[in-house]
Formats: sequence, C-alpha cells, structure tokens
Amino acid sequence: MGQTITEKILDEHLVEGELTPGEEIGIEIDQVLTQDTTGTMVWLQFEALDLDEVQTELAAQYCDHQTYQFDFKNTDDHRFLRSAAGTYGAYFSRPGNGICHQVHKENFAAPGKTLLGSDSHTPTPGGLGQLAIGAGGLDIAVAMGGGPYYVEMPEVVNVHLEGELPEWATAKDIALHLLGELTVKGGVGKIFEYTGPGAEKLTIPERTTITNLGTELGATSSIFATDEKTKDWLARQDREEEYVDLQPDDDAEYAETIEVDLNELEPLVAAPSMPDNVAPVSEYEGTDVEQVIVGSCTNGAYEDILPSAKMLEDREVAKQTEMIVAPGSKQASEMLAREGWTAEMMAAGVNFSEATCGACIGIGHVPASDSVSLRTFNRNFEGRSGIEDDSVFLCSPEVATAAAITGEIVDPRDLADELGDLEAPGLEMGTKYGPGMGEDDSDIISPDEAIDDGLVKGPNIGDVPLKDDIDVDGGEALLKMEDNITTDHIIPATADILKFRSNIEKLSEFTLSRVDDTFADRALAADGGVLVAGENYGQGSSREHAALCPMYLGIEAVFAQSFARIHKANLFNFGIVPLAIDEETYEKIDQGDDLAIVDDVPAGVRSGQEEFTVSVNGEWEFTADLDASERERDILAAGGKLSWVKQQHADGGSGAAPADD
Amino acid sequence: MGQTITEKILDEHLVEGELTPGEEIGIEIDQVLTQDTTGTMVWLQFEALDLDEVQTELAAQYCDHQTYQFDFKNTDDHRFLRSAAGTYGAYFSRPGNGICHQVHKENFAAPGKTLLGSDSHTPTPGGLGQLAIGAGGLDIAVAMGGGPYYVEMPEVVNVHLEGELPEWATAKDIALHLLGELTVKGGVGKIFEYTGPGAEKLTIPERTTITNLGTELGATSSIFATDEKTKDWLARQDREEEYVDLQPDDDAEYAETIEVDLNELEPLVAAPSMPDNVAPVSEYEGTDVEQVIVGSCTNGAYEDILPSAKMLEDREVAKQTEMIVAPGSKQASEMLAREGWTAEMMAAGVNFSEATCGACIGIGHVPASDSVSLRTFNRNFEGRSGIEDDSVFLCSPEVATAAAITGEIVDPRDLADELGDLEAPGLEMGTKYGPGMGEDDSDIISPDEAIDDGLVKGPNIGDVPLKDDIDVDGGEALLKMEDNITTDHIIPATADILKFRSNIEKLSEFTLSRVDDTFADRALAADGGVLVAGENYGQGSSREHAALCPMYLGIEAVFAQSFARIHKANLFNFGIVPLAIDEETYEKIDQGDDLAIVDDVPAGVRSGQEEFTVSVNGEWEFTADLDASERERDILAAGGKLSWVKQQHADGGSGAAPADD
Repeated sequence: MGQTITEKILDEHLVEGELTPGEEIGIEIDQVLTQDTTGTMVWLQFEALDLDEVQTELAAQYCDHQTYQFDFKNTDDHRFLRSAAGTYGAYFSRPGNGICHQVHKENFAAPGKTLLGSDSHTPTPGGLGQLAIGAGGLDIAVAMGGGPYYVEMPEVVNVHLEGELPEWATAKDIALHLLGELTVKGGVGKIFEYTGPGAEKLTIPERTTITNLGTELGATSSIFATDEKTKDWLARQDREEEYVDLQPDDDAEYAETIEVDLNELEPLVAAPSMPDNVAPVSEYEGTDVEQVIVGSCTNGAYEDILPSAKMLEDREVAKQTEMIVAPGSKQASEMLAREGWTAEMMAAGVNFSEATCGACIGIGHVPASDSVSLRTFNRNFEGRSGIEDDSVFLCSPEVATAAAITGEIVDPRDLADELGDLEAPGLEMGTKYGPGMGEDDSDIISPDEAIDDGLVKGPNIGDVPLKDDIDVDGGEALLKMEDNITTDHIIPATADILKFRSNIEKLSEFTLSRVDDTFADRALAADGGVLVAGENYGQGSSREHAALCPMYLGIEAVFAQSFARIHKANLFNFGIVPLAIDEETYEKIDQGDDLAIVDDVPAGVRSGQEEFTVSVNGEWEFTADLDASERERDILAAGGKLSWVKQQHADGGSGAAPADD
Repeated sequence: MGQTITEKILDEHLVEGELTPGEEIGIEIDQVLTQDTTGTMVWLQFEALDLDEVQTELAAQYCDHQTYQFDFKNTDDHRFLRSAAGTYGAYFSRPGNGICHQVHKENFAAPGKTLLGSDSHTPTPGGLGQLAIGAGGLDIAVAMGGGPYYVEMPEVVNVHLEGELPEWATAKDIALHLLGELTVKGGVGKIFEYTGPGAEKLTIPERTTITNLGTELGATSSIFATDEKTKDWLARQDREEEYVDLQPDDDAEYAETIEVDLNELEPLVAAPSMPDNVAPVSEYEGTDVEQVIVGSCTNGAYEDILPSAKMLEDREVAKQTEMIVAPGSKQASEMLAREGWTAEMMAAGVNFSEATCGACIGIGHVPASDSVSLRTFNRNFEGRSGIEDDSVFLCSPEVATAAAITGEIVDPRDLADELGDLEAPGLEMGTKYGPGMGEDDSDIISPDEAIDDGLVKGPNIGDVPLKDDIDVDGGEALLKMEDNITTDHIIPATADILKFRSNIEKLSEFTLSRVDDTFADRALAADGGVLVAGENYGQGSSREHAALCPMYLGIEAVFAQSFARIHKANLFNFGIVPLAIDEETYEKIDQGDDLAIVDDVPAGVRSGQEEFTVSVNGEWEFTADLDASERERDILAAGGKLSWVKQQHADGGSGAAPADD
C-alpha cells in the first residue's frame, strides 16, 4: 500500500508502535525549537534531568514573545536562555531577531525532518516538507535529551487544491476558506496534506502561511510535498543542499479528501472573535478601521510584507488610522530595508516595529477601546489583543493595507476599481542577504560560538518543583468548578503574570485566580487536596504550567467529568491523577468535602486498576475511573515524567539519553 | 547696554515686568508642544477653559512616551490627542513618528521664537536659537489660549567654548564635562548661552545635544547664536526661510562666564546613577556590558546614529551584549534606511526599535538584573531604567558602540588602537527626504488636514476637577512627611500608574502611596484636610498631577518647612495654600492633629496677609507664612489657575484669549 508524506516521514522516525490512527506511537525527533515564554521551563527541566548536552540534531532557542522587555524579568529570561543554549548546545536567536517559526523556517527547517516545538504554531515549516508538531515544554526537554516523542497517530487528510488564485486572493484566503468550512475543531486528531495542481503553484511563503494556520483548525500538523519551488526557496536561503524529494505515493490512502477550487476564492476576513468566523471582505465594507497591523508568524515574511509596501507606494496611511508593520524576522526587516521598502513605508506613515510576536499576543499596540483592528495574524480570540470586547479581523496583507489606505474595510478589488492605478501586487520572491545557516549570522549564536560558562539565573528564575513518587490518597475538594475550564482559567497569560513563567513558586499564586482568587492560599494552607470539575477540564493552550502550578500547590488528583486531551497528558507528566466521574457524582460533591480514596492508589496505578472507590466525608462512596496507557501509568507511578525519565536513566532505559557525567 | 541673545528674544516677547534676574516676567509664547503623558491633561484643561481654538502661532501634539501602547489606555490617549489637535487646531504627530524634541526641532523650531513645552527637555531647540522652556501642563493650556507665561527672570550665563573637539570626543562630552563641573544643580535659575569659536564649529545636531542636556544642569534653558550652520541645517530641513540672525551684542553683560577648552576634552561617561557623576571612560574600562542603547532625544538624530553605523560596518555586536537603536524620530529612521545603514546595522546584530522615548523612561528594554547598560540618553537616575539598583552609564554613541563591539566598557581610542582599522567616524550632516514643514508629511497631521469632529474620549479619560473659589480653614493633618518628598513620592510615574494620567479620579488613588498607601482612602473619607512636611517639599519633576490629585482628594493646604519652586507654583495653580512653618512647629505637630486656621483665609489671601495663626487641637497655636506674589494670590483666591483664567475671560481680561463662542 502506498504512503502519504506523513507516513513516509513517520516511518523513518518510528521508535515504538504502528502507524494506525488512534494508536500511540513513539517517534524520533530531529530538531526542537522553544521560545521565551515556554523555553525557560524547558531548560530548567533539562537541568533537572541532569542532562548535559542536547542530543537532537539541532535545538534552537528563540526570543520572540517578550522582546520589548517591559520588565527586567523578561530580560533576565533572555539572558538565562542564552546561557542555557550555550551550556547545553543549542542555537540561540537574539531578542529582536524574529519569531521562532519564521526564523526557524529561514535557517533550519528541512524537508523530511521531524521538528518538535513548545509553541502551537510549530507546524509552520510543513510548507517546505518538514513534519512539525507542537507540544508541552517537558516533552521538548525529553526529546532534546534524546527520548522519543509519543503521540496518538493522527488521521491523514488530503486537501486537494485545483486551479489558481485569482488576483487579490491569497494563500491567507485559502486558509481562511478552510477555517470557514471546517471550523476551529475541524482538524483535531488530523494531519492535513496539501496536494494537487493548486498546491504546486504556491510558493513557500504561501505554503507556510497555510501550514501556520493549520493550527487554528486544531490540526496536529499540516504539510506540503517538496518540489522545484522548495528547492528554489532553500537556494535563496543558501541551503539548497537540505533539499529532499518528498511526495505521497500515487496509491497513498487518505482518511478523507477535501477539494478546494482556488479559482473560486476571493478576499476574505475572519470577523471578530474567532478564526473560523469567515466571510467575504465585501460583507464588512465601510467599517471604520483605527488600526492595521501587518506581520506575525503567519504573514511576516519579506514576501508577505512586500505587497503592502507596493500598495503604499505614492500613497499614505489614512489620517484616522494607525498602521504598524511588525516583520516576522529580522531577515525580512533587513531585506525590506535593503530594497528601499522600509523607507518608503515609513514615508507613507507606517510605524515599523521590532520583529516580535508582540501585538499578536496582546503585548503592545493594544487597540483603542471600541475600535476595529485589522491584522494579518492567525488568532482573533476575544481579548487576545489586550483589551476586552475587542474587534479584531484577520485578513491578508492586501486587505489590511487597503483598509490602511482608506481608513475603512474595503475589498481591494473595489479599491483598485476606485483608484484606477492600484495594481494587484502579486507575490514576488526575495533572496536573503549575507551568510547562511546561521553559522555566521550575528543574530544567531551557534553552539560553537556560544559562551559556555553555566546558567545565569536572575532572581525571578526558580527551580522546577519535583515529585519523586506517587503519594495520593485524596483530600479536601478545594475547588468545585463548572464545565469548560480552560488553561487560561488555570494559569492566566496576561503580561503581568506571564513574566513569572520561570518562577513556579510565584506563578502558583495566580493558579485558578480567575475562578477563585483565594484558591492558591487555601491550597497551600491545606497542604494537599483535590480539584473537582465538570466536562472538558483543561481545554485551550498546551501550557504545562496549568499542571505544574497545581502540583506545586499540592493538588494530588482532579475529579472531572471529562478532560481535554493535552491537559490530561500534562497532568500525567506532573504526577497529578486524572479521575473521571459521572454527572450524578459531580452534582453530589460539594466544595469542602473530604474525598478519601479507599483503594491503595500507588499500587492500583501500577497494577492497571481502572476503578477507584472514594469515600466522601466518610458518609457515602462513589467510583472514579482512571483511563491511562501503560506508559502513562509508569509516568504517574514515578511521580511525573521528570522523575520517570530520571529513573529510566538510572535503569539504563531509553527515556532520554543519559548524561555524560 | 548690550543684550544677550536671551534678553533680545525676551525683550521682543515681554508682556509684563522687567528683565531683572529674580523678578517675575510675563512673556508671549509663539509655539507650544505637548507629549502624550502630559498632553491629555493639557487638552482637558483647554476644554475646561471653554477655549475653542489655539491662539499661539503653532501648537504641536506629539505621541512619544507610550508608543508601544501596552494598554488600551495608551492607545485611547493617542486617539484623544489626535481628536483634540483636530478640534482645537494643533499639529498632531503620530505615535511612532518620534520624540517631541527631535520632531519639533526638525519640523517647527525656529530661531528667535519662544517655545513652551510640557516636558522638561523642551529647551532642546535652543541649539538653533529658539528660546524654549519647560513648564507644567496648565501653563501650556493657558499659553495656547493666548495668555502670557510667567517666570522669574533667570540669570544669563555665558559658556565660552574655545578650541576644537579632538577625535572621539563629541558634543555629548562637552555636556557631560559641564555636568561634572557644575553638578545637576549648577544651572538652577539660569539660562546658558554658548558662545565662542568652539561653539561656532559645532553643527546643529551637536548643539541640540548640549541644549537638551542643559536640563540636567537644572537650567531654565540653554541657547546658541545662529549662523551659517543654522541656516544650512534649516535648508536641509527645507525651511531655510525660517532663519533669523541672532547674536549677543559685543557688550552684552553676563552674570557669569564659564570657559571650556574643547581641545582638552576626551570621551566621558556619567556613571551610575546621576548625570553629574562624570569620569573619563578609561576609568571604567573592562566593565562587562550586557546592553547598549543608542537613541533618545539627546542623541537620536540621523547624525547621532550614523557614527554608530559606521563603527559597526563589517563588525558585529558582541555575543553577550544586546544593542538596541531607538532613533529620535522617524525622519532619522527613514534617512538611515534610505542610506542603507539600517540594513547594515541589522546585519551587525542591532535590534532596531520604533522611534520612541521608550527605554529612557523605563518603558521597554529594561536591563537585566545586576547588569550594566550603556545608553546615549540624558538621565541615569537610579531605577529610571525600570529596575531598582540599575547600573546605567550615559555616554556618546561612539562610546556606546565601542562597548557593543567588545562587550565591555572601552575607550574608543584604545579600541581604535587595538583594531587598527577603526576610524573616528566624525560627524556627517544628512538632509531630510520628502516634503517640508509637516504640511505634506504623512506622519504629521496639520490643523488643515485634521478631522475636526470633536473630542474622542475612551473610558479612562476623565474630567479635570475644578475648584471655583477658595474655601480653606484647615483640617486634620492627614499625613506628616519627612524632608525632600519628591513628585515621584506624590504621584509615582511607573507604567502601571502612568496609564491613568488622563484619569484624575483613578490616578488620585495612588497619591502619596509610596509614603503611606492608606493615604488616599483616608483623605477621601476625611472630606478635606491638610498635609505636613519638612524641607524641600515637592522636589523633582514638574508634573502638575502632584498638585491636581491632592486637590481632588480635598487637600486644602500644605504646611512645610520649605517648598520646591515648581511644585509651589503648581500648588497655587490648583488652589492649595502653601504655608511655611519653622522647624520647631514641624516637630510639635503630630499626624492626626486638627490644624484649624484661626484667620479668615480667603480674605487674608486677597488682602496680602502674610501670617496666619493656626490652632492645634484647640490646645496651642503657631504662625504659618504665605509667601506669594500678587498674581499668585489672585490665582489662589480664584480657587486655582483654571478658575482664575475663566474669571478673567468673564471680566474681559488677558489671562487667555476669550473663546469665539
């Protein structure tokens, strides 16, 4: 039977399991990437594992989220990350050098390789044939130590593109079209492979815009075949030798095929406040726009910004509108500057930003109250821009720039008709300047160039809390929560709290504060206890801090009607027992009840026991279910993944390669 | 008798008084400028005065302090300022267009004109012969309304420059040399006029670096004569017609003359943490440097940054050091970009920032803990960079760049010796691109281009509280404070509080919180009361919020051993009676005492009474002194300057021109 691209890459990297959708597989990781808000914990965990050198072919540490450095804690984090990269053998990309996905794509991403990254948009380089997956920080640390990455084998879906994009329609519109059709849940448990003559016509910057936005579909990853366009793009990056030919077999079997005729696409927007709230631009024509931002990891390449620059030539930004350009990388910034476009855009009224995630995560350039912002980003969740009740539209650089010129939402085709001399800019490829591979790039410090003199920890950089065995017998129900509690509820991500990501003791003070701001104090005082929740506990981002902080506060178990997939994995990773209860039980439990687990939990976890009896205040009993694979039970029994990996080292196992010392 | 340059300009603008040092004079203001953290209150006061059009020749509103827009309140402030400029007839400079002093210099500053600005570095354009003075916001509002500005006539000091700067010594070193000699108090009550053959050799960018730093000497202003260099610079800005010949008379009499031989200067630094802590760079050679920032209103012109760019050509920033360039204006950014220097600096590892005050006021790029930062700014007060116990050195762009290349403090002369191929870049003049006068500048919206459809106030933009008469009889001593309470104690300026500058009700909650965080609540609950302080109450910045917020909280009077000059003026402006007490009385008063003023205060203020009897808890009495000019008594009697000006309108007086309606 023929193979898909995904199957071919996975086959080459398979360490455990079989490529059957839904089954757990273990795969070898070639490259890892981390960024500044997740990376500090990755390296602290790497340190806690007593590892002393990166074992993957390549690891890269980026500084992109907090590069405005509002607080010394941000700057300290960057210094710590530089020291960790130097100490353990990772590439370090300086603050201001750009967003991890864009910089990794430019410098390191390679067809056929596996990439694991502690950021949800890690799949971006799928556009050039890399199989790239986002994961929690501890999984990155373990992968860097040489351990396999475990994931349920996804279904592989074929997105077959026919035809060719009409003028003014862009790759962004392909992704928005899919979001409109499939919704933000349409890709869960799936990998999308883009094929067909329409895919072949797309350039690498266009393909990576689409694979970047695959994350908004909920997909595990997205990938394109490689071809002459891939080779050409690598050559423009001075990395032609990295090219590998990758095609699905003619008789490859896909779980599903989705057909898209590019000829039928038109300029689209995702209206507030969800990326799948998609409509033609024309539906919102005439809406006043106070802010336009072009950039981000979705549309921040030189080739993404160039159309904006061309549209602004001899024009200017409307008086009532602010336009900010935040390139995805310094390479993009430098290319625009060398070609003269930076100066032209400045003259047109553009405020040029550092290359940073910045506004996309609500850090800087927060919209004014009661105003509309058009952004070329990938997410417009309510409040993400930094102000509640925001009105953020997602769109292509062309649609964003048309709005900047007129001060209102306008279909660029209508604007072209009106102005007479505005031509569709199309997509023109650029070629990087200067040295290749980051070896001599002043903004990427290679392991060879790095200063290797130990970790530099500022006063805000704490230790990773460790549990070294399982010691669970239940306790007080410290908090009873509703359905759909998100990781944002568990550990908020606003800038004032984000700065404590390297300091679990301090960060823990904010645990579940959006639900009950007395919780953290009560949990510490109680010296152990459990949580109770409804359906879908822990949905949202992959942040492992949402398990790490409750563990720090002494939470032993979570009783919930159901768990979100990634958060459940994080609970295992940090030694918290996820126990499922039925609705009737949920209703009967009150906050403050004593939930004593009657069975011997450590023994039961080890022996494969699935049902545990719990006594409530010594008055009544219920049964809670533990649904866990053998590997997950081992992790739990060890007190969490860190301890599990350490034990494997001691036993000479393969969880991660042992340290040299 | 011959006149100084200062006397010539003042003579032409004199409305009241005589040019005798120490005497109060009233002068006509030609131009005003405001920025975003002081400007919102200026326009709210302008609105409260029922004025409807700017009466000065020119008013310009800049957005420079909070242009990263961390919070929607910042963005709302910028939108409000744009609407106010459009409504009342001021030029509006967009966020990202640069720092007020630099942008004003480029676009509007003109020899022989008077400029009043609500920022302490307003004297910057003195380098091209403008007499420019910083003042509180209400004084700006009144001046914009057509009223005179009142100030004590300063002494005029001649700084006579001989010789020529040696290689690697710069204008920054002239200013640092003076700071080292005269200290940060050396210029109080003085205006410095720079003369002599050494002054004639300096270019306009060099002269404005020196006049900018005059503020650090405590000077009221600093000024240079005009000459061919001035004319040439104006021509490069496409404003040659603004040139006016301005020279001191040969027999001008100065209060004092200071001689400086430029030949003897060498590269200097101001070491942590005071601008007058000056030493040769060589004294600190070898100190590790983690951060270098080039830019600010002091050294942010194209001509200031160009030497850095030249030094970095074919070199790169040291691996352990971050270098940020934050140009003073977008004009500087654009010129650097057009010449190709932006791309070169990026390639060398520089992180290019928006044109903003930013890091200079602790907003962004806060240094890492326990690290050294070299900056080309004008102030290195402890903690100003955003982290307590910081180590910020001030220096020239050349010294900063030498440190960026080596990663440590190094005398650039030593570095040049070491490298062999590093030449002193010197100063090369640039010429702006594009249109002149801001009329067609996409980043400066002229009153003609502006949208004039009323003020746009976000939810954080409050009203100006008004008192409309004097109603003072003493009250509870709500707080007893030590000597040297600063305006930073009264109203802190950290970013989390700064965002409430347009919202007096909210801002008031932080009043004196650094002294006693229960104060604001207690004052509101007490419904009136008084403050007690030792010597030098209200020293530091000119921020009027330090009087406005206590007024809002109901404070009627401040009893202090002595008052700082500007704060005392602000107390008058907001209707709070400043009463002087002796040390013995200060010692006897306890917090919580009832201080009842026995005399009729309103009548006494009006009649010129200087001594007021105060009864303490009905048990003992003391005498407090009111030292106030006739104008100050009128202001106090009216309940503050806003009410006083409004009354003058009603009476047809000249406090400010009456509104058209």
